[in-house]
Amino acid sequence: MNAPLPPSRYAFSQRACNLTSSAIREILKVTERPEIISFAGGLPAPQGFPVEVMQAAYDRVLSQQGRVALQYGPTEGYAPLRAWVAEDLKRVGAHDISPDEVLIVSGSQQALDMLGKLFIDPGSKVLVEAPSYLGALQSFSLFDPAYVSVPTDQGGLMPQGLTDERVRDARFIYALPNFQNPTGLTLNLQRRQELVERCAAVGLPIIEDDPYGDLRYAGEALPGLLGLGRAVGATVIRLGSFSKVLAPGLRLGYIAASREIISKLVQIKQATDLHTATLTQMAVYETVKSGFLATHLPSVRELYRKQCGFMLDAMAEHFPATCSWTRPEGGMFIWVTLPEHIDSGELLARAVERNVAFVPGAPFYTDAVRPNTMRLSFVTVPEDKIRSGIAVLGELIRQS
Amino acid sequence: MNAPLPPSRYAFSQRACNLTSSAIREILKVTERPEIISFAGGLPAPQGFPVEVMQAAYDRVLSQQGRVALQYGPTEGYAPLRAWVAEDLKRVGAHDISPDEVLIVSGSQQALDMLGKLFIDPGSKVLVEAPSYLGALQSFSLFDPAYVSVPTDQGGLMPQGLTDERVRDARFIYALPNFQNPTGLTLNLQRRQELVERCAAVGLPIIEDDPYGDLRYAGEALPGLLGLGRAVGATVIRLGSFSKVLAPGLRLGYIAASREIISKLVQIKQATDLHTATLTQMAVYETVKSGFLATHLPSVRELYRKQCGFMLDAMAEHFPATCSWTRPEGGMFIWVTLPEHIDSGELLARAVERNVAFVPGAPFYTDAVRPNTMRLSFVTVPEDKIRSGIAVLGELIRQS
Repeated sequence: MNAPLPPSRYAFSQRACNLTSSAIREILKVTERPEIISFAGGLPAPQGFPVEVMQAAYDRVLSQQGRVALQYGPTEGYAPLRAWVAEDLKRVGAHDISPDEVLIVSGSQQALDMLGKLFIDPGSKVLVEAPSYLGALQSFSLFDPAYVSVPTDQGGLMPQGLTDERVRDARFIYALPNFQNPTGLTLNLQRRQELVERCAAVGLPIIEDDPYGDLRYAGEALPGLLGLGRAVGATVIRLGSFSKVLAPGLRLGYIAASREIISKLVQIKQATDLHTATLTQMAVYETVKSGFLATHLPSVRELYRKQCGFMLDAMAEHFPATCSWTRPEGGMFIWVTLPEHIDSGELLARAVERNVAFVPGAPFYTDAVRPNTMRLSFVTVPEDKIRSGIAVLGELIRQS
Repeated sequence: MNAPLPPSRYAFSQRACNLTSSAIREILKVTERPEIISFAGGLPAPQGFPVEVMQAAYDRVLSQQGRVALQYGPTEGYAPLRAWVAEDLKRVGAHDISPDEVLIVSGSQQALDMLGKLFIDPGSKVLVEAPSYLGALQSFSLFDPAYVSVPTDQGGLMPQGLTDERVRDARFIYALPNFQNPTGLTLNLQRRQELVERCAAVGLPIIEDDPYGDLRYAGEALPGLLGLGRAVGATVIRLGSFSKVLAPGLRLGYIAASREIISKLVQIKQATDLHTATLTQMAVYETVKSGFLATHLPSVRELYRKQCGFMLDAMAEHFPATCSWTRPEGGMFIWVTLPEHIDSGELLARAVERNVAFVPGAPFYTDAVRPNTMRLSFVTVPEDKIRSGIAVLGELIRQS
């Protein structure tokens, strides 16, 4: 028998000690059980993935430029893909973006990590929507900011909430203007204009996170904050993603911002992961370069529109009048406000016993938590299970 | 004409303000000119990339499991690849690694970033070899450590340099035991044993970075620090990479460590980029699962051995006796010590005028900088250009 080993002794950083397992993560573990009807996920519908088209693209890249595709590449990203993104940004009203104002990243989540590194010192004030995207809060939190939440109403973020006191010394405001995660709400044009003007006036950078913008299935497309902001001198850093328009397993996204900001982010990305996979960038460029998305996206939008409709119909039938919920014009999520006395965390425990899951609202708040809220995703669940799952939730809410 | 825009005003984090452009990066810009003979690069030889094999692997994965390959995946990594890595670690003497002690990452550089997050608070003491891998220093520096360098000699890191004073309150020691970047030196078995025993005794975690271990073309393979360390109760965190055995453009690597450490790193990775690309992991697993590397690596090793020999021969012919240099048993780099009066940064300026480039040694040191050193890579330069480039350097050194 061996002698007893000395105990492991090591000290983690303060930020690592502060980490707790995410609520969503723990819930998703439960929801992996096949019998669970899960409205908790944030996964896009796999039937929308253009598998054959991407397979052909990988094939062409590897047979024609294999050694380039498998070699190290520039930290900034694959030049033709950067140029494609710059051109594509015209669709969201950003007409003057140069390819060197685009940085390719390994998914939007990486962009959030890099922006945390760029802007956040311990205690730095960071403005977020209430509620906001949990994944962004997790990324930023590694850099120990002091969150201040900006009030929202049924129209989303309220620009008049950017009071002098709130914006003073804030490093940036983080906003999702289209079909926000978790609420599904969209900022109207007037609020977008007010937001960029206010931020320009007070010198507050805006991080515009727009992973869902191309998934609009109702209402009219609105210009993004990047183009609106540039016109009035606001600093806007736009995050885009290929996760919802092509496939999330690729881990591919981009940041569009001024040269000064991109240049710092390139240095940060070099230290973070050198560069995003060359082959992935080349295969995605090969996929999108000739207008594929214009023919592909209508079917994805139609799929999401129908799924959203199934859930809204079921909610109208089964949820009591004491509940209210958002009616998204795009994206993946519906946000439910339950009667004040219901804690959605407790509701989840009872729902899981009945094989239904969702995400409670509390973790999406940095303060002024509203425990009587929850996020429902309608994307990957078949119509009949949406109906039966919503019926169970309605029954449990009525019993509460 | 538009009214003048208000000035952009924003504050970067202190760490971002401290960033300066890397010396290697600036040099590599010059070396992109086609007339330059560059010994500066750290790129593997593209003729060693198994393009056709990987193309077939991507094809199989996308045609057989396309929707899984393009969907979000677990943060921990693709389970069959984790199991393959755990099994493969037996080759380096780590016989008891469980798949859940393996975390898949987007290249070793990402592992360094995540370990910086895990261990480094501002001012935390971090032990590094002198000289050490520049990319690691860049990653760690984002978290503002206090570096303390451990002395090295012609045998690499000296375990007796881990004095009580040096190790006190240190968060970890970062070491590259095989064909170190930048020196090409390898720790012998006795030093490995002394290192893990000393670290076990004082409770100092070891980060073992081993991207080049499979590129041994001379001498005998030695057990890695992970297996040696576990046997004596040391905490070893091993970083491995597919960059040098398959292709770097994939951005794929792994971390092997105890469950407690992997579990914290999973939380950190979730906030950093959610997970590494599913398709990449599945295609690499498809490539390696049936023993491909055992047949592929001998040809890569032979290529590197020959290239290394060309450079050593040319140096023996052209470099004056006042220079000394390492004779690597594997990997990609030779480290040159010039006469004390020569500053390799100044030498580089004159070399670039003659269309030859290399990396000066200074940036690889955190303290006690030796400016009369330089790193030469022999991997991607054809034999005739190795000869003429080394001849130019020899001439310039003699003139100094």
